[in-house]
Amino acid sequence: MTVVCADGNGCVLGIDIGGTKIAVAAVDAGGEMLVEGEFPSPSRDGDAMVEAFGSLIGREFDRYREKGLDVRAVGIAAAGYILQGEGILLESPNIAWRMVPLRQIAVEVTGLPAFLDNDANGAAAGERFVGAARGVDDFVYLTLGTGVGGGVYVGGKPLRGHRGMGAELGHIVIDPNGPVCGCGHRGCLEVFASGTALGREAAGVVAGDTDSVLLEMAGGEAGRITGKMVSRAAERGDRAALRAYEIWSGYLGMGIVDLIHIFDPELVVLGGGVSESGHLFIDSVRRAVSERGIASLVEGVRIVLSELGNEAGVVGAAGLAWEGIRERVL
Amino acid sequence: MTVVCADGNGCVLGIDIGGTKIAVAAVDAGGEMLVEGEFPSPSRDGDAMVEAFGSLIGREFDRYREKGLDVRAVGIAAAGYILQGEGILLESPNIAWRMVPLRQIAVEVTGLPAFLDNDANGAAAGERFVGAARGVDDFVYLTLGTGVGGGVYVGGKPLRGHRGMGAELGHIVIDPNGPVCGCGHRGCLEVFASGTALGREAAGVVAGDTDSVLLEMAGGEAGRITGKMVSRAAERGDRAALRAYEIWSGYLGMGIVDLIHIFDPELVVLGGGVSESGHLFIDSVRRAVSERGIASLVEGVRIVLSELGNEAGVVGAAGLAWEGIRERVL
Repeated sequence: MTVVCADGNGCVLGIDIGGTKIAVAAVDAGGEMLVEGEFPSPSRDGDAMVEAFGSLIGREFDRYREKGLDVRAVGIAAAGYILQGEGILLESPNIAWRMVPLRQIAVEVTGLPAFLDNDANGAAAGERFVGAARGVDDFVYLTLGTGVGGGVYVGGKPLRGHRGMGAELGHIVIDPNGPVCGCGHRGCLEVFASGTALGREAAGVVAGDTDSVLLEMAGGEAGRITGKMVSRAAERGDRAALRAYEIWSGYLGMGIVDLIHIFDPELVVLGGGVSESGHLFIDSVRRAVSERGIASLVEGVRIVLSELGNEAGVVGAAGLAWEGIRERVL
Repeated sequence: MTVVCADGNGCVLGIDIGGTKIAVAAVDAGGEMLVEGEFPSPSRDGDAMVEAFGSLIGREFDRYREKGLDVRAVGIAAAGYILQGEGILLESPNIAWRMVPLRQIAVEVTGLPAFLDNDANGAAAGERFVGAARGVDDFVYLTLGTGVGGGVYVGGKPLRGHRGMGAELGHIVIDPNGPVCGCGHRGCLEVFASGTALGREAAGVVAGDTDSVLLEMAGGEAGRITGKMVSRAAERGDRAALRAYEIWSGYLGMGIVDLIHIFDPELVVLGGGVSESGHLFIDSVRRAVSERGIASLVEGVRIVLSELGNEAGVVGAAGLAWEGIRERVL
């Protein structure tokens, strides 16, 4: 890690706001992280939170400038519904924040242009910036973690929608008779293709395959099987775990088919925690898509894994800032 | 109908290619149809078809010029999969045409710029041109007829996708256990929200409500109930027909919810033959959307009926041409 912006174009501040932590980094135009930091998310709502968030950004911004970095803009990716035009976090499923003017806070503290989007759109921006979607104008990004989020590029631009709340891909319905989703409705992609869902499918499979190491891992209680356990067991060749991946991949494939029919993308990128075990399911997902899609629409669409890994959050936020700067110039 | 381009900006040739007929019209920049004609679709494939289509356009083009019309461009909307970049009709569900270079034929015959898209994208262009979506940058259009098609505008531009085959909204899956669709897969929006589907739902309802006038209309055979019969019976207050609309609207609402979650549109426009009876179902559809969608995403999204009616095809094709001219200038 160097502390000089290598290419003379300066850096941006990428800020990734999650449910428990806020990651901050200075990132140059090549996606290189120059300085970084991690902080607990202020959990209070209201003025106290606004102040805490503002002083956090201020401290980091000062620290980076003292190191001689030429910071040009701020990019913020936050878990939650974003009013893109207004730069406001409307609400978040995991943080007790409501109607927080995140963009304005960043502008006031730094005096720089700031750009805000949700975490999944940020991750998609990151993939286009320095990940699997470099140079690709039409692609769909899905983040597979505790929940399922999405980001889409159409003709080289992020799909934002009328109020900036578009691409809520986790809440397209896969099966109206499916389990109830966190959003209150039944059978959303999120309830079938999250890490949580992978654990649930495995619990269903071990009921008929009690030899599985998964039962042991979960202390004998199938209901306690997590996505991570399924991944570990599948690495060891556990039959039930592999079967759970196959079922789960079928549902994920159904969601991807819908998205290909809708967007005719060049590429589908799968990111998020579950994708770290992508080698265990990517072939099943590709098979499901080719079986369930309209041939002339799904053939030739590449389905690949994220290339960003752990740094996806801040690098994505930085991608939002670089993209924002470029859009302003054009 | 006048034969002088009223506003001095000339006209375009709109060509609507359907399964049985080809409609052609000269349309001015205000959406006014100046001259029109209708012809049977050449049903042969191959060179004979190319020749027949070319001479049809040539004759109409000459006729319009003889009337003193200043034709500036050609817009073609065709039922089928379109390779937008190449200007080719890849295949069509209702015509025996394969790989027809429609755009090139139009360019060669007229010497004018020509623009090609599928019929649903054309109808969406028409709604934005002079219909329900005037001035709206983010909207979803659904055509509800024998099948279900779609067109989408994102940030003021038509969603085309990587190869120009995007917005196949009729083939997002509503229920993976649903009836088999024409595309070979199960439970597509098309199989639930087409006119055909409305007839099928009604057949199911009359099985438990044999007083319905629908049975009489269908000569005693529930399996022969069509969408049009359901519309006529519902106008007369027939309980079974109204119930069929309600079930059908619920499915259509599910599709619309998915599309709102994906696109965050300002507006959803419903067109196609079934929408002519829109007053019989628009309220049920709105209710289904508000019940099944995530409140912060679906609230405030307007759901309205097409304003173009019978002329949607050629006016939409003309809209493609006007849009194409404008895009070239910008």
